[in-house]
This record gives sequence, structure tokens and C-alpha cells, in this order.
Amino acid sequence: MYRIKVYSIGKTKEDWLQRAIEEYAERLQSSLHFEWILAKNDAQLHQFLEKENNFICLDLQGKQLTSEEFSRNLIKWLQDCGSRLSFVIGGAEGISAAIKSRTRGMISLSKMTFTHQIARLILVEQIYRALEIDKGTAYHK
Amino acid sequence: MYRIKVYSIGKTKEDWLQRAIEEYAERLQSSLHFEWILAKNDAQLHQFLEKENNFICLDLQGKQLTSEEFSRNLIKWLQDCGSRLSFVIGGAEGISAAIKSRTRGMISLSKMTFTHQIARLILVEQIYRALEIDKGTAYHK
Repeated sequence: MYRIKVYSIGKTKEDWLQRAIEEYAERLQSSLHFEWILAKNDAQLHQFLEKENNFICLDLQGKQLTSEEFSRNLIKWLQDCGSRLSFVIGGAEGISAAIKSRTRGMISLSKMTFTHQIARLILVEQIYRALEIDKGTAYHK
Repeated sequence: MYRIKVYSIGKTKEDWLQRAIEEYAERLQSSLHFEWILAKNDAQLHQFLEKENNFICLDLQGKQLTSEEFSRNLIKWLQDCGSRLSFVIGGAEGISAAIKSRTRGMISLSKMTFTHQIARLILVEQIYRALEIDKGTAYHK
């Protein structure tokens, strides 16, 4: 069983986002244990990440991957990290250099700027898609 | 008053998407008239687009823009097209060559593949963001 945590800042304000995230989290249940960790601010995010050794940062400066490349990378990261991996979505100021210096990888979802809520939704859907690609199901076609 | 239509294939299956789209559409109301047109299939999409002269296709082969570039482009497209513009999100097979040959531009949201629902959500949020960037408000910061 894989374990993936996603760290981000702020609350899930929108009701629709909560529903969307729940839907994907439910679909993911059989393949992995999925956890959202919401920090109040940058300082708390730093504090949380002190205990984490294996995390990937989502950042505009990161590398863009296709969904197939993300799938291959995700499986490799999970294998390299004893099946436990975290993702970090930064706050309005981006992710600090101190956190970036410890990351296993930096990826970017798009050249466009998204709200954190939408970034969270895209990430959970891409994780779901990545596992479906790896399993060879028809979801992604 | 700007008028923007978004053509896509399929239904708004997810309840959360309907809520999310309604939320942005409501926020956009004061700046533009926004309309979703859902085609049942590719053939119907073709038929609908026969009447349209000014549309932009969302396609993986399109050009990626930052949100600021998208904002400048959107305002320019609207000005060039008498304040009326459409966007087209293709079906599972992408957008046909016949439609692409008549487009004013092709943009890509990401190297990643998204569901049509998520692409619709991203597009409406980026249109909202583009108008806020143009107005100089603090939303996008």
C-alpha cells in the first residue's frame, strides 16, 4: 500500500473543492492511503516538513511532465522512498529556498498560475491518473 | 460587455464541477456574458462551430501561455473580434483538423492531460483571472 501526503497552506474554503477531493480520495482508497495536511502559514509548513525526508515540490520553476511521465516518475519515487511520498504546494510567496534545497524533485503543473485549491484538485486527479496509467486501465484514454 | 462562449463535449456529470463553474460564472457576470455550450458528440460540435468565426482551441499541441500572457491575448482577441469570442475544448480524440484550420489560435493549459471537466474549470478560472489581471486587482497576486 502506497502512502501519499499532500502539504499545502490554507483551508479548503470552497464546498465544491471538498466534494471533488473527497471523490478522488475515495477512488484512490484501494490503491493508496492518501492524506491532506493543511498548514496555517509558511512557518507551520516549514515545521511540518522538518519531519519529512521524501517530498516533491510543486512550483512554477519546476519541470513540466506529461501525465505518462508523471506516472513513471511517481512510481519510481514511491519505490525509492519505501512507498511513502509527500507533495508540497507552496503559499502565495512560493516555496522557500530552505524547503526546495531538501526536495527530491520539483514539478510544475503548467505555465499558468492556479489557485491553491485548483492545484490541489489537479494534483489529486493526476495521482489517480498516474496509478491508472501504471495499472493499464482505460481511465486515461 | 464581453461575450464568451465555451464549447465542449459531454455533460457536466460531477455535482462539484457544476458548483465550481457556477461560482466563477457568477463572479464573471459583471464583466462579461458567459455561456457554456455542451455538444453531445464530435459531429454536433462541428455543426455548432460552423456558425462561429472567432474561436480559440484548447489542445495539447497548442501554445502554453502564462496567466499574464493569456490575459493580454484574451483582451486582444476580444478587441479584434468585436468583444465576442469562443473557446473549444475537444473530445477524447482531440479537435479535428477541419476545426483547427479555422481557429484564431491554439493554446495548451499544460503538458498534462486533464479530464474535460477539470479543463473547463481551469479555463473559467483563467478567464476570471485574466480579467482581474487586466483590471489590476489583487486577485492574481
